[in-house]
Amino acid sequence: MAASSSLTLSQTLLSRAISHPASSSDRPDRISLPGFRLSNLSGRSLDSSSSPLSARRRLPAPARQARAPVRAAAVETLEKTATALVEKSINTIRFLAIDAVEKANSGHPGLPMGCAPMGHILYDEVMRYNPKNPYWFNRDRFVLSAGHGCMLQYALLHLAGYDSVKEEDLKSFRQWGSRTPGHPENFETPGVEVTTGPLGQGIANAVGLALAEKHLAARYNKPDSEIVDHYTYVILGDGCQMEGISNEASSLAAHWGLGKLIAFYDDNHISIDGDTEIAFTENVDIRFEGLGWHVIWVKNGNTGYDEIRAAIEEAKAVKDKPTLIKVTTTIGYGSPNKANSYSVHGSALGAKEVEATRQNLGWPFEPFHVPDDVKSHWSRHVSKGAAFEAEWNAKFAEYEKKYKEDAAELKSIISGEFPAGWEKALPTYTPESPADATRNLSQQCLNALAKVLPGLLGGSADLASSNMTLLKMFGDFQKDTPQERNVRFGVREHGMGAICNGIDLHSPGLIPYCATFFVFTDYMRAAIRISALCEAGVIYVMTHDSIGLGEDGPTHQPIEHLASFRAMPNILMLRPADGNETAGAYKVAVLNRKRPSILALSRQKLSQLPGTSIEGVEKGGYIVSDNSSGNKPELILISTGSELEIAAKAADELRKEGKKVRVVSFVSWELFDEQSDAYKESVLPAAVSARVSIEAGSTFGWEKIVGSKGKAIGIDRFGASAPAGKIYKEFGLTVENVIATAKSL
Amino acid sequence: MAASSSLTLSQTLLSRAISHPASSSDRPDRISLPGFRLSNLSGRSLDSSSSPLSARRRLPAPARQARAPVRAAAVETLEKTATALVEKSINTIRFLAIDAVEKANSGHPGLPMGCAPMGHILYDEVMRYNPKNPYWFNRDRFVLSAGHGCMLQYALLHLAGYDSVKEEDLKSFRQWGSRTPGHPENFETPGVEVTTGPLGQGIANAVGLALAEKHLAARYNKPDSEIVDHYTYVILGDGCQMEGISNEASSLAAHWGLGKLIAFYDDNHISIDGDTEIAFTENVDIRFEGLGWHVIWVKNGNTGYDEIRAAIEEAKAVKDKPTLIKVTTTIGYGSPNKANSYSVHGSALGAKEVEATRQNLGWPFEPFHVPDDVKSHWSRHVSKGAAFEAEWNAKFAEYEKKYKEDAAELKSIISGEFPAGWEKALPTYTPESPADATRNLSQQCLNALAKVLPGLLGGSADLASSNMTLLKMFGDFQKDTPQERNVRFGVREHGMGAICNGIDLHSPGLIPYCATFFVFTDYMRAAIRISALCEAGVIYVMTHDSIGLGEDGPTHQPIEHLASFRAMPNILMLRPADGNETAGAYKVAVLNRKRPSILALSRQKLSQLPGTSIEGVEKGGYIVSDNSSGNKPELILISTGSELEIAAKAADELRKEGKKVRVVSFVSWELFDEQSDAYKESVLPAAVSARVSIEAGSTFGWEKIVGSKGKAIGIDRFGASAPAGKIYKEFGLTVENVIATAKSL
Repeated sequence: MAASSSLTLSQTLLSRAISHPASSSDRPDRISLPGFRLSNLSGRSLDSSSSPLSARRRLPAPARQARAPVRAAAVETLEKTATALVEKSINTIRFLAIDAVEKANSGHPGLPMGCAPMGHILYDEVMRYNPKNPYWFNRDRFVLSAGHGCMLQYALLHLAGYDSVKEEDLKSFRQWGSRTPGHPENFETPGVEVTTGPLGQGIANAVGLALAEKHLAARYNKPDSEIVDHYTYVILGDGCQMEGISNEASSLAAHWGLGKLIAFYDDNHISIDGDTEIAFTENVDIRFEGLGWHVIWVKNGNTGYDEIRAAIEEAKAVKDKPTLIKVTTTIGYGSPNKANSYSVHGSALGAKEVEATRQNLGWPFEPFHVPDDVKSHWSRHVSKGAAFEAEWNAKFAEYEKKYKEDAAELKSIISGEFPAGWEKALPTYTPESPADATRNLSQQCLNALAKVLPGLLGGSADLASSNMTLLKMFGDFQKDTPQERNVRFGVREHGMGAICNGIDLHSPGLIPYCATFFVFTDYMRAAIRISALCEAGVIYVMTHDSIGLGEDGPTHQPIEHLASFRAMPNILMLRPADGNETAGAYKVAVLNRKRPSILALSRQKLSQLPGTSIEGVEKGGYIVSDNSSGNKPELILISTGSELEIAAKAADELRKEGKKVRVVSFVSWELFDEQSDAYKESVLPAAVSARVSIEAGSTFGWEKIVGSKGKAIGIDRFGASAPAGKIYKEFGLTVENVIATAKSL
Repeated sequence: MAASSSLTLSQTLLSRAISHPASSSDRPDRISLPGFRLSNLSGRSLDSSSSPLSARRRLPAPARQARAPVRAAAVETLEKTATALVEKSINTIRFLAIDAVEKANSGHPGLPMGCAPMGHILYDEVMRYNPKNPYWFNRDRFVLSAGHGCMLQYALLHLAGYDSVKEEDLKSFRQWGSRTPGHPENFETPGVEVTTGPLGQGIANAVGLALAEKHLAARYNKPDSEIVDHYTYVILGDGCQMEGISNEASSLAAHWGLGKLIAFYDDNHISIDGDTEIAFTENVDIRFEGLGWHVIWVKNGNTGYDEIRAAIEEAKAVKDKPTLIKVTTTIGYGSPNKANSYSVHGSALGAKEVEATRQNLGWPFEPFHVPDDVKSHWSRHVSKGAAFEAEWNAKFAEYEKKYKEDAAELKSIISGEFPAGWEKALPTYTPESPADATRNLSQQCLNALAKVLPGLLGGSADLASSNMTLLKMFGDFQKDTPQERNVRFGVREHGMGAICNGIDLHSPGLIPYCATFFVFTDYMRAAIRISALCEAGVIYVMTHDSIGLGEDGPTHQPIEHLASFRAMPNILMLRPADGNETAGAYKVAVLNRKRPSILALSRQKLSQLPGTSIEGVEKGGYIVSDNSSGNKPELILISTGSELEIAAKAADELRKEGKKVRVVSFVSWELFDEQSDAYKESVLPAAVSARVSIEAGSTFGWEKIVGSKGKAIGIDRFGASAPAGKIYKEFGLTVENVIATAKSL
C-alpha cells in the first residue's frame, strides 16, 4: 500500500471519467458536480474486471510524474469534492445506524460507525448487484459475518435502492414484524445473503458462496463466455476471528484457492469485554499467512479510502489465494466519548452522545435523513443494477444458443427447478434385496441422484469412506479441479456445515450434502441450527447413528441426538430403516429446499423389510405391517431405523401367539406431525394405549407417542465400548425385551 | 536440533550415571547391563528440572570435542546397547497395540506404531508419575488428544506398572466391561487424565490442565517451596489440528503463556480419507508461530530419539510460551505394506500383515509378550513413582508447617473436601427482595461462593458483563497475573468448555465455571457432552436463556436447548426462577462434582416469588403454592425459570375464581426423576390430569409431565427480533393464555 496511491488512483479515475462521459448520464439532479463524473469517480472504479486500477498498473511510473501542474490542480479540486461526497455518504451510513439503534434503544452502533468507509466503497464503488432483483444470479455476494453490525448492511441496502429496506424499515429496526431484525436474516430481508450473528458463521458461509462460484464457473464458463463470474466479500471482526469455525473455513478457503473471496477483517481491538488484549493477542496476519491467504493491512480504515480501494485492487489481482484485508478501524468512529471502547459496541449511544457525535462529524440533519446529494449519488445503482442484469441476460442468451445442455443445467441450478421425474432415479428394494447398512444404501441414493440433479455436491469431514459419501463418477473438488463434486472438508465439521449453508444459499438448485458421524453433529450444531433458521436445505448425512457402531465407545455413540434435533424448529430428522426408507429420506430431503434434513444412518447391516416404502417415509410415520382389522390392533410397536427390524421380529413372534399387532415405522416425527388428524388416527388410533417404542437412543420425547400407558425402550445413559451385538443385548434392545415389555402392558 | 546432539546427550547421561551409581539400585534382575546404569541412561534423564541436558548446555563445546577416543568408544558401546533396549521397548509398545487391535479385530494401530518413540521417551524418561497412585497431585499430566490411538497409552500404562492396565485388560481391549475402552476414558482407566476421541478436545483439556497448574503454582508456591510444579504433555494429530477447537485453545495457551504445556504434533500426513494433501495444506508451524507458540520440528520421529529428547529439553527451557513439537512420523511404522497409508489408521492389520511386521521389526515374541529386559527396565517406575510422591509429601509437610492457611486451602483443592458450612454463604431472598434478573442473582452467588470455595474460578466467552460472571474481589487470570480467578476466554465457547473440563479434572477441588449466552451452547456442545461423560462437574452459566432476551432475535434466542440437554445423560439442566432458586441451583452445581450443571438464567428482571427455596431446587420439582388440600388440586400449573412468575399470577387469578390450583416449579427434571415415587406423587399426583405447563422453549418432552390430557404452552418455532414483552405476548406466554388453556381442559 504505497502512500502515493491516492493521487494516482484519482488521476486514473478522472481520466477514465473524461474519456467516457456518456457512460452513466442518469444523474441530472446533481448540484455540486456533473453527475456522470461523480458517478464515475466514486462509483464505477472497481466494479468490472477491467478496472481503472488495473489500467493504472499499466502506466509506466515516469508518465505519471510528468503530468502538468495545472492538470494536477484540477484533479486535486475534483478529488476534494468527490472525497467530500464520499465522506458525506459514509457519515450518512453512520448516522442511519446511530439513529436506528437510538430509536430502537437497542443494537450495535459501533461496527457500522467504524466500518462505514469499507461498506461505502464496497456497495458504492466495487460490488455488482441489482437492487431491484436481489436474487440476480451473477451478483457479487456480501456477507456481514460480524452480524451484530447489521445496521451497516441495512443502511447500505437502503442507499443502494433495495425495496426491502425503506426508511420505515430503518425506523422499525428490531421491532416485531420488521424487515430489519437484530441480526441479518436472509429470509426476512432480500439483499441479505445469509443469516449471521453467531460469530464465525458468516466467514464460513462466505467460503461456501465462493466455493459455489468457483465450482459453477469451472463447470459452465467457456473460453468465450464467463457466464459465472462474481466476487464474495465478507466483513468479519475480532469475535469471528477468535471462533474456531473461522479458522476451519479459512484453512479450507486457502486450500481450495478461492481467489475471489475477499475478507475484510475489522481490526478494531475491541470486543464486548473490552480491549482484545485481554484474550486475543495472537498475530492474525501470520496465522492467515500460515493458512495460505494473501494478507494486506490497511492501517487507516477510518479515512484511508484510497488505501481500502487499493487493497481491493490488490486482492483482485491475487487470483489463486483468498485475501484477508486487515482494516484497522476505530469502533464507534466519530463518537467523541465512546469511540474505541466497548461501550459503543452493543448499546445505543444515548441522546447526549448522539448530539456530541453530530457536532463532531458536522452532521446537522434530522434522524434518518439522507442528504439529497448522497441520495442522488446512490440512485444510479438502480439503473446500473438493471444494466448489469440485462447485460448478463444477453450474455446468457448467447450462451444458451451455443451451449444448450450446459445452459439447461445451469438454468436448473439457478432456478431450483429440477429435471422432471428426477425422483425415479432413486433405487427401490424388495425384502429379497441383500441386507445392507443404511450408510451404504445412502451412497447408492447419492450416486443415483448425482446423475439427475446437477446441483448435488458435497462430502465428508474426513470420513468419506466411513460415511460412504463419495460420488463415484466425479473426482475431488480441489484447487485445480473445481469442476468436480466430491468435497473434502477435512476434520472440520463446524466449518463444513456453515460452508454448506453458503453453497445452498448461493443458488436455489445447489443441493449440498455433508457428512460425519452422527455424534459429531455436536461439533456443528450451531451451523445446523442456522441451516434450519435460514432455510437452507442442506442434507446432513450422519452415519454411525447409535450404539450400533460398537467398539468406538461412548464418545462416538449418539444417545440424545435424535431427541435434540426433534426439538429443533424447521428441521427434518429422518432415521430410515432400510433401502426403501433411505430412498424415501433422500426424496424428502431433496424436495425440502427450505428445510435441512438430517439422515441418521447405520454403520451395521440391516435387513430389507417387507412393508417399507418411499411413500411411507413421506408421511413420517406409517404402518409397516399389521394383522389386526378395523384399526383396532391390540398392540402397536413403534420404531425407527435399525430397531424397526427388532420390532418387526417381535411382532412376528407375538402374532404367532395370536396377538393382533401393528408395526409402525416412525421415520420422521416432523413429517408425521404435518399429516391430517385422520391419517394420524389411522396409524396411531387414540383408543389403543398398548404401545411400545424401541429406538437405540434417549427415550426423551417418546412419551408423547407411546402415551402414559405405553412404554419406551431406549437408552438413557451413555453407551459403551464393546461389539455392537453385545451392547444391544446388555441395553435390552432385543426382540425378547420388546415381547416382555409388550406383555407387561 | 543439531545432528551431533545424540552423542553429546549420551555422554552426559553416562557421566551422570557413573557419578551417581547408588541412586537407583532397585534393579537386581537386569541381565544385559547393570540396572542402575540403564535406569539412568534412559530413565532419569529429563524427569527433573535439573536435567542432564541442562548440564550439557553448560559444557563448552571444545570440552566435548577434547574427549579421549577410548572414552568415546565406551560411550558408543553403551549407547548402542541402551538404544537397542529403547528400541525393544518401543517395539513392545507397537506390538502390544498391534496385538490388542488384532485380538479385538477393531481399533487403531497406526498411531501407536508411529508415536511409540515419543510415547516411550515421555513415560520412561521424562514424565514424573506414580503408577500405584494415579491421582498423586503433583504428577505430570499426559493427554492423548488423538484418542483413537489409545492403545499407545494403555501399553504405556501397562509397562509403567499401573494396576488399571494389566495384561488381561490389554486382552479385553474394546470389550464389554473392560478397562480398556475404544477411546481413553478417565472414569474407566486410572492413569488416563481426560476423555478423548472426539478430535481437538484433548489439546483443549491439556490447556485447562496447564492453566490449573500455572494458577495453583502462582497461588501456592513460595520462594522456598515449589509445591505445585508439573508439566502437561499432549499428543495431537492432524485431525486435532484441523478442528477449530484446537486453534481456539492454542490461541489461549499462548496468550496465557503456558510454558509448561508441551504438545507433540504427530505429523504423519495421513488422515482417514488419505493423505492430508487433500484437505489440509496449511503451514501449521507458521500458524502456531502466529498464535504465539514456540515451535520445534523433529524431522525423524520414527527413530530420532535424541531429536525428540532434545526437543523436550528445548521446550522446557522456553518458560513463557507453550511449545509445539512437530514430530514427523510414519503412521503404522514397521508395517511393510500398510505403513504411511490410511489403511493402518483404523483397522486391525490382519494376520498376514502382523506377521510381515514381526519379520520387518524382528519381533519373535508371542502376542502380548513383554520381553523380560523391557519389563525389568520399566519396573523401576513403581519405586521411582513412590519416591516422587514420598518426596513431595515430605515437602508438603514442611510447607504445611510454614504456610498453614495456604496449605489448608491447597489441601481442600487437592482433596475436593470443601470447608464445612460453605453453603451458608449462599444468599437467600424474600418476596420483598428487589426483582432482578437471574443472571445478576447468579453473580451474587458466584461472588459469595468464591469467598468460601478456594477452587472456584472461571469466566466468560467475551460476555462477562452480560453473563455477569466477574468475581469482584479478584483480577484477571493472565500471563503475568496467573494467581487471579477471572478467566477471559475470548469468543471461544468450544475451547472454553474443553478447557474447563481440563481444569476440573486437574484436581477434585477445582470448580470451573464458564459462561456464554444459552443459545451458544451449540458452539460448545461437544465439550459439554464430554463434561457429562467424563464426570467433570463444570458449572455452565448460561444467560439470556429465552426469547426474553428480546431484540437480538432468533439467532440469539434458545428454543430447543432446554430439551436438548434434558435428553443428554449425566447432566443437570437447571432453570431457576428467582434468587432462592438461583442459590439452590448453585448449591446443587457445587455438590455435583461428577456431573456438570447448566444454569439457564434470564437476561430480564424477575420477581422474587413466595414459596421458592434452595431445598425445593434440590428436589428438582416442588410445590411453590397450593390452595388445595389432600393432594387433590383441580389444576396443576408447572413451569420453570422466568415463566414461573406467569404461572403464579395465573394461579392467583384462578384461585380468585374459587379454583384449587397448585403451582409447581420444575427447575430440574433430572433431580425430580431421582426422587422417590412417593415424593413424585406428592407433587404431581397421578389422579390429577388437568395440568398446564408453561416454558419459553420447545414443548418437546413436556408431554411426559403434563400427560396426554394436559397442555404444554411453549415455543415450537424460532424466535423473533422485537422487545421481549412483545414476543411473549405474540407467542402466548401470558397469564391470560395460561388461564384460557387451563379452562379449556
